[in-house]
Amino acid sequence: MGVVIPFEGSEQKQPSLDPLIALTGADMVKVNEAILARAASHVELIPELAGHLINSGGKRIRPMLTVATARMCAAKGDAHIKLATSVEFMHTATLLHDDVVDESDLRRGKKTARLIWGNQASVLVGDYLLGQAFKMMVETGSLESLRILSHAAAVIAEGEVLQLSASHDTSTTEDAYMQVIGAKTAALFAAAAEVGAVVAARPKGEQAALESYGRNLGIAFQLVDDALDYSGKQALMGKSVGDDFREGKITLPVVLSYRRGSQEERNFWKRTLEDGNQTADDLVYAQKLVDRHNAIADTVERARHYGDIARDALAIFPDSDHKSALLEAVDFCVARAY
Amino acid sequence: MGVVIPFEGSEQKQPSLDPLIALTGADMVKVNEAILARAASHVELIPELAGHLINSGGKRIRPMLTVATARMCAAKGDAHIKLATSVEFMHTATLLHDDVVDESDLRRGKKTARLIWGNQASVLVGDYLLGQAFKMMVETGSLESLRILSHAAAVIAEGEVLQLSASHDTSTTEDAYMQVIGAKTAALFAAAAEVGAVVAARPKGEQAALESYGRNLGIAFQLVDDALDYSGKQALMGKSVGDDFREGKITLPVVLSYRRGSQEERNFWKRTLEDGNQTADDLVYAQKLVDRHNAIADTVERARHYGDIARDALAIFPDSDHKSALLEAVDFCVARAY
Repeated sequence: MGVVIPFEGSEQKQPSLDPLIALTGADMVKVNEAILARAASHVELIPELAGHLINSGGKRIRPMLTVATARMCAAKGDAHIKLATSVEFMHTATLLHDDVVDESDLRRGKKTARLIWGNQASVLVGDYLLGQAFKMMVETGSLESLRILSHAAAVIAEGEVLQLSASHDTSTTEDAYMQVIGAKTAALFAAAAEVGAVVAARPKGEQAALESYGRNLGIAFQLVDDALDYSGKQALMGKSVGDDFREGKITLPVVLSYRRGSQEERNFWKRTLEDGNQTADDLVYAQKLVDRHNAIADTVERARHYGDIARDALAIFPDSDHKSALLEAVDFCVARAY
Repeated sequence: MGVVIPFEGSEQKQPSLDPLIALTGADMVKVNEAILARAASHVELIPELAGHLINSGGKRIRPMLTVATARMCAAKGDAHIKLATSVEFMHTATLLHDDVVDESDLRRGKKTARLIWGNQASVLVGDYLLGQAFKMMVETGSLESLRILSHAAAVIAEGEVLQLSASHDTSTTEDAYMQVIGAKTAALFAAAAEVGAVVAARPKGEQAALESYGRNLGIAFQLVDDALDYSGKQALMGKSVGDDFREGKITLPVVLSYRRGSQEERNFWKRTLEDGNQTADDLVYAQKLVDRHNAIADTVERARHYGDIARDALAIFPDSDHKSALLEAVDFCVARAY
C-alpha cells in the first residue's frame, strides 16, 4: 500500500478518493455538463439509453484521472475537459458493447441498457458515443491526444476479442489473464492519465510517467475488482457478489484456485465456468475454494505490486495537492479490498 | 442520367465504373495492402473475421471515391491511401454491426460473420476496425479529415438508431426515409469524397463541392439499391432479391406503394413488414404491388434527381480524366437499375 503517513496522533487515516474528488470537483462539473450535452441527439432513444448508464452512479474515475493529471501539469484552457469527456464516452461505449457481448442483465445493481432497450440499440448507441468521443478529441486539435486515445480504442477492442476467445477456459494462465486486463482496463486508464500531460504540453518523460501511472493503477484497480467479486465485502458496494462467477468469467482468483486445487476442485471449476452448469450452492463453494487457496489475498497482493509501480511512476513530479491525491487514489484502490 | 455521349456511330455506350476502376487501380492496390496490414492482429480471430467480409467482393466504391477525388485535386503523398483505408474500415465496421442489429444471415451472397463467429465477435471486431480507422486518420496528421470522418461516424450511428426506432413502421414518410439514408449511406460517401480535397489542401469551395457530390451520389446509390431489392435485375448481381422485404425494412419502394395503395394493400404491408408474418407467395405479391404503383420507376427517378445534383456539384472542377470517371460513376449508379 506504499507508505501510509500516520495522522497526528496514533490513528491511521483510511486512504480515500475524497481529496481527488475535491480537487477535480469544479472541472468535473464541466465534464458532467459536457457528457449531458454531447450525449444529446434529436433521436430520443440516444440520450435516454446513454443517460441510463451515465447516471447509474459510476465513479467517473477515468475522466477524473485526465482532469487531475492535466491540473497537476498546470494545463490551461478546456482541452482537458473535452478529453476527459471523451474518455468517459469511450468507457461508456465499451460497457454498452460489453453487456451485449456478455449477455449481462445487471450493471452497478441496475438493469442493463440491453435488457431495457435491446442489444441492437445498445450496440448502436455505443457506436454513437464513440463517434462523439472522437469529435470532441478533434475539437481539442491535439493530434498527440488523438493518437493516444485512438490507439487505446483499438487495443481495448482487441483485448475484448482476446477475452472472447479465452473466455470460460479454466486453463487460462495468469499471463494470459494479465494480457486481457492490460488491454481491457489498463489501456484506457493509461491513455486517460497520459493525455493530461499532453494537453499541458509537458515533456515526453512526464507523459510516459503518467502513462505508466495510469496503466499500473488500472491493473491494480481491475485486480481488486476481480477479487471483490468473490469477497463478502462486495455486497457493501452496490455490486452484487458472484457476477463474474455466474457469467463464467475467468479472473485471477479463479486462475489461482484452479491451478492450486485438486483434480476434484478443477472439475468443479470446469463444470461451473466452462460448461456453465451451476446450482444454487455453487457460489458459496467457489468462495470457499478461493478462500482455501488464499486466492483473494494473493490477487490483492498482485494489485499492491502494480499499485507500488504506479506510485513510483509519479515520483518525478514535484509535490503538490494533485500529486498527493493521485497517490492516495492508488492506496484507496488497493485498500478497498479490505 | 445526365448527358450520355453517343460513341462514334449510333451505339450508345453503357455507363460503367471501369474508367474509375482503371484510374484508381494503382492506388487501390496500396489501399488493399493497407487493409490487409491494418486488419492484422496477434488475436487470430480478428483478421479471420475481418477478412471474411473484406474479401467478400465489395466494390470498394467508398475508398475509390477518396482516391479519385484526391487525385483529381492533385494530392501528393500517401495520406489519401490511409484515409481511403480508414473509410473502408468505417464501412466494414458498420456492416458488421448492421448484420448483428438486423440479425442478417447473408451479405453479398455469403454467410454473415455473425452467423459464423457469433454476434459477440462481430461487435468487437467492428470496434477494433473503427479504432484502427481512427489510428490511420491520426497518422495523416489532418485534423480537418479527422473532423469530417469522426462527424460522419457519429451521424451514421445516429442514423442507425433512428432507423431502429422507425423500422417496420409502414407509416414512415418519404422524408423520414430520406433522413435515414442521408445518415446511413450518404454521410460516409460525402465524407469519403470531401477528404479528397482536404488532403490536397484545396480551397473550401472545392471541399464543399466534393462533399455535395459524395452526399448526392450516396443517396442515388442507396435509392437504386433499394429499388433493385424489389426488381428482377437484382438476381443478376449476386445479391438475393427480397432481402429488404424479408427483413421488414421500410424502403422507398414500400413507402410509395403503401401510400398509393388500397386499404387492403396497406394491410398486406402491415402484416408482412410490421408484424413480420410472411408466407411463401408474399414476395411475389409485394413485387406486383410495387410494380402496380410504379414504385420502382419512381424510386429510380428520385435517384436520377440526386444523381443530377451530384453531377452539377462537380462542374466547378476543370475537365480531367478523373472528373469524367467520377461523372460516369454517377451515371453507372443510376443506370444499373435498368
